[in-house]
Amino acid sequence: MRRIKLVVAYDGTRYHGWQRQENAVTVQQVLEEALEKLTGEAITLTGAGRTDTGVHAWGQVCSFETDCHIPIEKFALASNTCLPDDIRIREAELVESSFHPRFDARAKWYRYRIYHHRIANPLTRAYQWFVPTPLDVESMQQAIGQIVGEHDFRAFAASGSEAKTTVREILSAQLTQQNAYLTLDIVGTAFLYNMVRIIAGTLVDIGRGHQPPDTFLNMLQSGDRLAGGMTAPAHGLTLMQVFYTRPTSAQIQETLIAPEIRFF
Amino acid sequence: MRRIKLVVAYDGTRYHGWQRQENAVTVQQVLEEALEKLTGEAITLTGAGRTDTGVHAWGQVCSFETDCHIPIEKFALASNTCLPDDIRIREAELVESSFHPRFDARAKWYRYRIYHHRIANPLTRAYQWFVPTPLDVESMQQAIGQIVGEHDFRAFAASGSEAKTTVREILSAQLTQQNAYLTLDIVGTAFLYNMVRIIAGTLVDIGRGHQPPDTFLNMLQSGDRLAGGMTAPAHGLTLMQVFYTRPTSAQIQETLIAPEIRFF
Repeated sequence: MRRIKLVVAYDGTRYHGWQRQENAVTVQQVLEEALEKLTGEAITLTGAGRTDTGVHAWGQVCSFETDCHIPIEKFALASNTCLPDDIRIREAELVESSFHPRFDARAKWYRYRIYHHRIANPLTRAYQWFVPTPLDVESMQQAIGQIVGEHDFRAFAASGSEAKTTVREILSAQLTQQNAYLTLDIVGTAFLYNMVRIIAGTLVDIGRGHQPPDTFLNMLQSGDRLAGGMTAPAHGLTLMQVFYTRPTSAQIQETLIAPEIRFF
Repeated sequence: MRRIKLVVAYDGTRYHGWQRQENAVTVQQVLEEALEKLTGEAITLTGAGRTDTGVHAWGQVCSFETDCHIPIEKFALASNTCLPDDIRIREAELVESSFHPRFDARAKWYRYRIYHHRIANPLTRAYQWFVPTPLDVESMQQAIGQIVGEHDFRAFAASGSEAKTTVREILSAQLTQQNAYLTLDIVGTAFLYNMVRIIAGTLVDIGRGHQPPDTFLNMLQSGDRLAGGMTAPAHGLTLMQVFYTRPTSAQIQETLIAPEIRFF
């Protein structure tokens, strides 16, 4: 048996998220079916984490065991011929049998994208949250720094979250603006359910003046979800990368500006 | 009667091009129906030019006459409430009754985008032509200069083209690369049917070594479409802007790099 690690990109628009479920098409299911077709084996994928309905990925990671003998350097191309065009395996590599995509992950990078203009953009509508209301972007850029560090993020999780502990560490959080395009990049050791979308939604509420500039501090102190703002829509969110060694600040900055992943 | 000029962006994926036709949904038809709903009048749009099935627009221009009294500064927002989310009126302004979107146009800017990588990109697949074969980008960048200037572009038109003259002037043509992303920007006084897609397809054939580096010169000299390469697929093409005064070289360079229209 070999264990193969895959790096997968997908357009989440058509899918009910990553994780396999009854009565709804998910990315995991479509990937497993493609790999079963290719290998002739029953395949069970382990993912680095769930993504919600409509959330995109550039660098989701998963792994599986197989007896198939397709050379690893040809594996991504061969698998992609069995996949619909909104899912692509970007990389495939052999890993130790002990490798676990979720438990071994040391950090994840999520990007949330906002189109901030009076008129919506039909060409980016599937990948950006359209926000036409005036925003105080400087306030937003100052506020986002409040979440960096190790904190109890209890107030940043959707109710019904089953995490044992709600303490997480945010390594980097920054909001950049290029005219109508706002990009929120967050790198953290792990994330609670809906956490990035709650951060993005609250940040926009701060920018609109619907929430005070110290809302994130209030949420961290009170532990109260109701102290925060709205949950931003799924389609603005992309899981960009899963790190298997803890990145330094310099590595994070280098990664965020690397042009090969600036796909927009 | 007032004449209103509109600047329209659309995702061409779902449409059989701009121009109204029987038995197929076009952008013109959907826009006319939205304006009829808004104004209660029968509306006939005149466009700056056709776009083919699947071609996108950021800055298509059209105009129409109306008796409606909606204030012009509210016209775009009001119309957009009647449109599907893959079409948006970006600007509306009152113009002289003599204004004609096509006859008054002095130049058009088209952008053709290529994703050049071994593995396709699911997140940009609707807006970029995926080319996995090796490309000599430097050869392509040298070759594209051959089309600049006033020439008989007979060899650059799909057969069945009905243009009276096939002489056109290309003001600027350049290919830029940022890792996997190749962007071909062409500004010309006017274009023949399929001209930009023939240029893009031939350019890729040159990059692949399937056509010699002086293919564009051969096409201009021979006037023979068969001297050129393939017609690139529609979904990589976007009509970016229609100019109503002839742009200078400096204005063109400024326009091409303006971040407000670098939507990808």
